[in-house]
Amino acid sequence: MTRHLPPDMDQDRLDRALAELRSALGAKWVLSDESELVHYQDPCPIYEADHFSPSAAVLPGSVEDVQATVRIATEHGLPLSPISTGKNLGFGGAAPRLPGAVVVDLKRMNRILEVDEKFGYALVEPGVSYFELYDHLRARGSKLMLDVPDLGWGGIIGNTLERGVGYTPYGDHLSIQCGMEVVLADGDVVRTGMGALPGSNTWQLFKYGYGPQFDPMFTQSNYGIVTKLGIWLMPEPAGCQAYMITLPREEDLGAVVDAVRPLRLNGTIPNVPTLRSLLLDAAAVGPRSRFFTGAGPVPDSVARRIADEHGIGQWNFYGALYGPPAVRAATWEVIRDAFAGIPGAGFHFEGEHPSPVLAARAKIMAGQPNLDTYKILQWHDNGGHIDFAPVSPATAEDAMRQYEMARDRCREAGKDYMGNFIVGRREMHHICMLMFDTADPADRVATLDLCRTLIREAAELGYGEYRVHPALMDEIAATFSFNDNALLRLSEKIKDALDPAGVLAPGKQGIWPRRLRGRNL
Amino acid sequence: MTRHLPPDMDQDRLDRALAELRSALGAKWVLSDESELVHYQDPCPIYEADHFSPSAAVLPGSVEDVQATVRIATEHGLPLSPISTGKNLGFGGAAPRLPGAVVVDLKRMNRILEVDEKFGYALVEPGVSYFELYDHLRARGSKLMLDVPDLGWGGIIGNTLERGVGYTPYGDHLSIQCGMEVVLADGDVVRTGMGALPGSNTWQLFKYGYGPQFDPMFTQSNYGIVTKLGIWLMPEPAGCQAYMITLPREEDLGAVVDAVRPLRLNGTIPNVPTLRSLLLDAAAVGPRSRFFTGAGPVPDSVARRIADEHGIGQWNFYGALYGPPAVRAATWEVIRDAFAGIPGAGFHFEGEHPSPVLAARAKIMAGQPNLDTYKILQWHDNGGHIDFAPVSPATAEDAMRQYEMARDRCREAGKDYMGNFIVGRREMHHICMLMFDTADPADRVATLDLCRTLIREAAELGYGEYRVHPALMDEIAATFSFNDNALLRLSEKIKDALDPAGVLAPGKQGIWPRRLRGRNL
Repeated sequence: MTRHLPPDMDQDRLDRALAELRSALGAKWVLSDESELVHYQDPCPIYEADHFSPSAAVLPGSVEDVQATVRIATEHGLPLSPISTGKNLGFGGAAPRLPGAVVVDLKRMNRILEVDEKFGYALVEPGVSYFELYDHLRARGSKLMLDVPDLGWGGIIGNTLERGVGYTPYGDHLSIQCGMEVVLADGDVVRTGMGALPGSNTWQLFKYGYGPQFDPMFTQSNYGIVTKLGIWLMPEPAGCQAYMITLPREEDLGAVVDAVRPLRLNGTIPNVPTLRSLLLDAAAVGPRSRFFTGAGPVPDSVARRIADEHGIGQWNFYGALYGPPAVRAATWEVIRDAFAGIPGAGFHFEGEHPSPVLAARAKIMAGQPNLDTYKILQWHDNGGHIDFAPVSPATAEDAMRQYEMARDRCREAGKDYMGNFIVGRREMHHICMLMFDTADPADRVATLDLCRTLIREAAELGYGEYRVHPALMDEIAATFSFNDNALLRLSEKIKDALDPAGVLAPGKQGIWPRRLRGRNL
Repeated sequence: MTRHLPPDMDQDRLDRALAELRSALGAKWVLSDESELVHYQDPCPIYEADHFSPSAAVLPGSVEDVQATVRIATEHGLPLSPISTGKNLGFGGAAPRLPGAVVVDLKRMNRILEVDEKFGYALVEPGVSYFELYDHLRARGSKLMLDVPDLGWGGIIGNTLERGVGYTPYGDHLSIQCGMEVVLADGDVVRTGMGALPGSNTWQLFKYGYGPQFDPMFTQSNYGIVTKLGIWLMPEPAGCQAYMITLPREEDLGAVVDAVRPLRLNGTIPNVPTLRSLLLDAAAVGPRSRFFTGAGPVPDSVARRIADEHGIGQWNFYGALYGPPAVRAATWEVIRDAFAGIPGAGFHFEGEHPSPVLAARAKIMAGQPNLDTYKILQWHDNGGHIDFAPVSPATAEDAMRQYEMARDRCREAGKDYMGNFIVGRREMHHICMLMFDTADPADRVATLDLCRTLIREAAELGYGEYRVHPALMDEIAATFSFNDNALLRLSEKIKDALDPAGVLAPGKQGIWPRRLRGRNL
């Protein structure tokens, strides 16, 4: 493993900074052994495994520790890279954007500070995972439902700050966030919203507070380290029943999107459904080699055979009905009617179809965290993925255009299209999982090139991405270029004001501090 | 009318700045005649009528004009105070926080740039009022419902930026905002979210974009001038039926709040209902003198007589049922059941009770803008109001505590309690309208003192306000004092970074630019 030094810093200076950190936090909470640092590498490396490696890691145990860490870092110009639990698969894992930055691993700060049953909220620290909060709720017999992402091991704060999504009616994670505590680069501790009022009794009840609302500015950014965060929890519905609708033809994608849009917009489908491509669902059944051992993309004829054998469609739509049986039945009528115009559509409730994906989605849409989705990495040996994640208007035309573009570019690169449309109220997150063999350098290069091509082509069509791997953060930022990059200029002004020494997550989302700007790091 | 000069600026320097503005925008779009400037005074003056007067007003007709205005202002250190349509009754109207600031009146920029029927959104300029967008929607036969505030003359951008509320299911106006264009103090034009991607087709579909989300930071702030804003529009429901539930006793307030909270939380009541006190509803019927001509607060015996004569309660709850008749009927059952434990509760649908308030709420909850609510100003001669607006947890205990505090302080000050709880999902905006005679200096002083007392007492109990009149912006900011005013420090850092000359709305929400900080202006 290559040990990266932070830019403009020699080993001696790094050692002095680490010594101060050890003295402030306790020696055992500052890691610099290779054996320990490998855990902070991207589990799906798109370059050499150690490309985005940190020079060290610190594990603060308290807000005071975080304050001490940023103060020492600011004094020494030591770049930091805060993580909550450090999952974030497909988007870099725990790895810092800036090679050599010191990971601030917040996993020791893992208290569930409050769960309020009456109002439906929790206040948590960064180390709390979805699994942990779920278990906590169950242990206390809570009647609140937690919205969970695809993989339950993620941290609630990390996921929310990356603007992750879940699949119940509370699936837009930033929209259910209420109140933050943030440590700024100078060590100042800010509570946002109503939390700024001493003794406040509405910190987790009312998002906006008084004056500018800053919380969303601390998401996908490098302006502070969030040490507490409130999330809303939904009252447990009277029932939850997942369903799967299989669609036999590629071109059904368009019809589904047009059928679903009005149902999402008017709330008939209250949660965040997903629309998954055939091979993505096949990957939950077995590795690619089980279906096809040739080179290049899985041929259409093989795809059809997989569909037939496993009773799944070229596209598969997963949603859930919520409420008492009568409400679910009435809602199901409306949904079936909406899909009725698609010949060959197959309708299946959970438990009535062997698909492991349906079983996994049923758990997720009922707010039960799990790791089932992780299985799709079996597709390749040494399976990794990097995600191309454009936002699409929820129309047939846009969905088909994005799909065909991604499918064709994937095939030209010898790859399978494995896509997933996450259907919001007016738009969809189109997650194209670019699967690759992490041990094959040529595959890594080809996959990154493919992702670059897709980003460029999408931007030309007016599509932008909602999230990206560190390897491509600058590229995406460059596509948000209106008025000669005015948005990035604004981001940089605020960066320089809040973090003049440029120590917090340099380069994250393309935002570099002044001292490192334009250096291609 | 006293003409205020901006701080640190003599008449000569002001004249030079105005001359440059005239040359850039056209002479007729820079107003400095008293006869024209009186329109920018607070219509409910709590000091002398001219206290918060501007030194001039400019009326830009385009984004370029706004850019020219901020550039000239920055060059001259000329403070500006942008308004959209400049309503904001009870919170200062069009008046600048800083006496002598130049009002930037954006009413000429009044284009409805886009209405999208399929996705349910509009993109508007600052001069567009709720009336105008409503009329536009009706004229094109739109099937979209606009969420409107109490008074339909307000500007959509102004209301959203002040974090105003409406009363349909889209009543949280910041939550339905999607995409902004903002002119910064240096004249830079930023588009937020997906709007930063040239040719973007999702600017009004996906709020967050890529990187930090800044939009909420531009609300209740002085960081930029918003020149375009997207809002979501709800698909017209199959039906809308308003109802009124009258509650006979003061102490029923608590029972109502506890009954309603779970119904708001689980969506049974999908819109933003209101819970209004007896005298507030009486004010819609006639002036105070119609009911009571004595001094001091209306006595309880008179209040009871008003209730009996007009068939209204000590509290009156206004909500609406949405959807087809069967859904409305089923929902109504649940709501009636929830109120069943309150003896004497009276249930009335729109059209079945003579209350003018029910008629007005029915329009508002169906998304029809009107000015009916304006009538309550008839309560006093020269009727004005200043609003004490604390956020309350949605519990019986908190509602009663806030009510009793406000009622008692009002009575001690010889005033009537006229309150309105706007019921969000987890909290309530408790709007206490402190009515006063704008022509009576002693009443003005007493009313402002009362508001100050209430703010202080509320803060001691952990309650903070969501919005306030310019006269009290610093006082409220001071109550959000966690960690020695860390939030204000953050606000000020960003202020200084984005507006180093300190020209945009100095003092708004207590945020002063460096050069004016601590000067008690």
